[in-house]
Amino acid sequence: MTLQETCNYLKEQDNILILCHQSPDGDTLGCGFGLYYALTALGKKAQVVCSDPIPPQFGYLLPEEMPEITPDCVVAVDVADTQLLGKNLAQWADKVDLCIDHHSSNRMYAKRTLLRGADAAACQIMIEVIEGLGVKPDKKIANCIYTGLCTDTGCFQYSNVTAHTMRVAADMMDLGADAHWINWKMFGTKSRARIAMEREVLDSLVYAAGGKIAVIAVTAEMLARTGAVESELDGLSSIPREIEGVEVGVTLREKTGGYKISLRTGENIDASKVCAVFGGGGHARAAGCFIADSLEESRAKIIEAAKKACEEAGV
Amino acid sequence: MTLQETCNYLKEQDNILILCHQSPDGDTLGCGFGLYYALTALGKKAQVVCSDPIPPQFGYLLPEEMPEITPDCVVAVDVADTQLLGKNLAQWADKVDLCIDHHSSNRMYAKRTLLRGADAAACQIMIEVIEGLGVKPDKKIANCIYTGLCTDTGCFQYSNVTAHTMRVAADMMDLGADAHWINWKMFGTKSRARIAMEREVLDSLVYAAGGKIAVIAVTAEMLARTGAVESELDGLSSIPREIEGVEVGVTLREKTGGYKISLRTGENIDASKVCAVFGGGGHARAAGCFIADSLEESRAKIIEAAKKACEEAGV
Repeated sequence: MTLQETCNYLKEQDNILILCHQSPDGDTLGCGFGLYYALTALGKKAQVVCSDPIPPQFGYLLPEEMPEITPDCVVAVDVADTQLLGKNLAQWADKVDLCIDHHSSNRMYAKRTLLRGADAAACQIMIEVIEGLGVKPDKKIANCIYTGLCTDTGCFQYSNVTAHTMRVAADMMDLGADAHWINWKMFGTKSRARIAMEREVLDSLVYAAGGKIAVIAVTAEMLARTGAVESELDGLSSIPREIEGVEVGVTLREKTGGYKISLRTGENIDASKVCAVFGGGGHARAAGCFIADSLEESRAKIIEAAKKACEEAGV
Repeated sequence: MTLQETCNYLKEQDNILILCHQSPDGDTLGCGFGLYYALTALGKKAQVVCSDPIPPQFGYLLPEEMPEITPDCVVAVDVADTQLLGKNLAQWADKVDLCIDHHSSNRMYAKRTLLRGADAAACQIMIEVIEGLGVKPDKKIANCIYTGLCTDTGCFQYSNVTAHTMRVAADMMDLGADAHWINWKMFGTKSRARIAMEREVLDSLVYAAGGKIAVIAVTAEMLARTGAVESELDGLSSIPREIEGVEVGVTLREKTGGYKISLRTGENIDASKVCAVFGGGGHARAAGCFIADSLEESRAKIIEAAKKACEEAGV
């Protein structure tokens, strides 16, 4: 669907249920509530729902109250696959009328899809939808859109950022977005449990192959000791690969019966090939697998495979 | 001086010596080499100098060769005070013809000064100077300017970022700046010694006053153990204050005869008042002092003073 068609479709709807993906992040929530404020500004009824509770740090995105509606139209935002709706929204999986997304892996499960795979964030599309609906974005909408932009780009750091992304963020700042405050909330603060987990994984760090391989571990014992929850582990697995000279960054995460392995590689090593040795897969720069063994054995096995890959690549 | 006057002045000069500040960062170097490329594009002779060696991660800013010149004109960039020129450039302290800077604390030591204290980076001013000289910025200049913008803003995260900053960065990306590559080089990688130091300071972390005070230490022993150099300690002192619930973040740094204390506070506590107890000072949100005592005693003393400040502030 084109942007114009999407806006025309939305203009005709009322009682719109907006679905965010499970384990909600700034982009799906920014999109959801941004669209909510735009639709209600047009006098329509809308409701944003998510399978999981909305993490407290996103509280500023929420309206003061949001009455339940009986939906005539269902819109999914930033949801690439119906599985990502989560179990509490599974009932809507085959009833999505419109999906607005930026994942090129989108499964095209919705009746209508506005997909722009090259956009840094779904919010980068959503602001055009909002303007296309004839709504002048206010501060609340600007905060929603800015939140999606900054969280999906690591605060404008990742390779998905384009000059256009920067200009949309600038426009949101002009519209009153509390950019610095949002940046601080999203990137400037860490919970005590998160800090404790960072200490734990740095304590677990080992190098191999003369520093070309770096491995950290996240064990059940660490989680018990720190009290960290799932969302407090975000991004830990990128630590090893960020170390100078490291070609293969490995994170071992303890699961029932063994270790889930997450691999990040530089441009010389194909992460998916290394993981394929253990029946896993993924992308060239990021892949995963499972090894049903102890920490020591799992670590030794993945290091062995990574070493071999380094040798074959001549690094 | 106005922008126009600055450009008119520079147009009349040849053999221009460009001074960067000591312990050079991305902004002073981006400014210096950005101006260098613009002046040489106009057929002028120029040279960039710095009291300290240029850190290797900034190597991409440098020209292939830069012959020595006998200067007729001396320009300081991003240098607020002649003391910051460092000892190898001290000879130029009273001979600076023009200073281009964004520090509102600039001491106005130069014969002419283009100062815009509200700008996020000196590079944000420099791009206007370059364009005012009639030079169309190429990819090299765009990389210089982008480097200053991203390094002085923590990758567009800090409160100094305005919508204009974002748009200038966007313009640099349009001109071919390798934004993602620069971001990765500046923010995405850490040396092994830096990672080892992060582990050490997290191991040293203690909380006081029910988590309102967090204290880390950087000892001579840690530096010996990790082999970390000064530039690898950048930003460590912001770690304690970034922890949720912390009002006073303290870093103790071992020096001859005692500990240099660096304090970062939230909006409830005046850091300079706490440091004044020990004869130090600074700003409301960041201040420092020196305590001539052991680690244990210095820590106990600063915690005591910080606790008192928390109690007085009612937090």
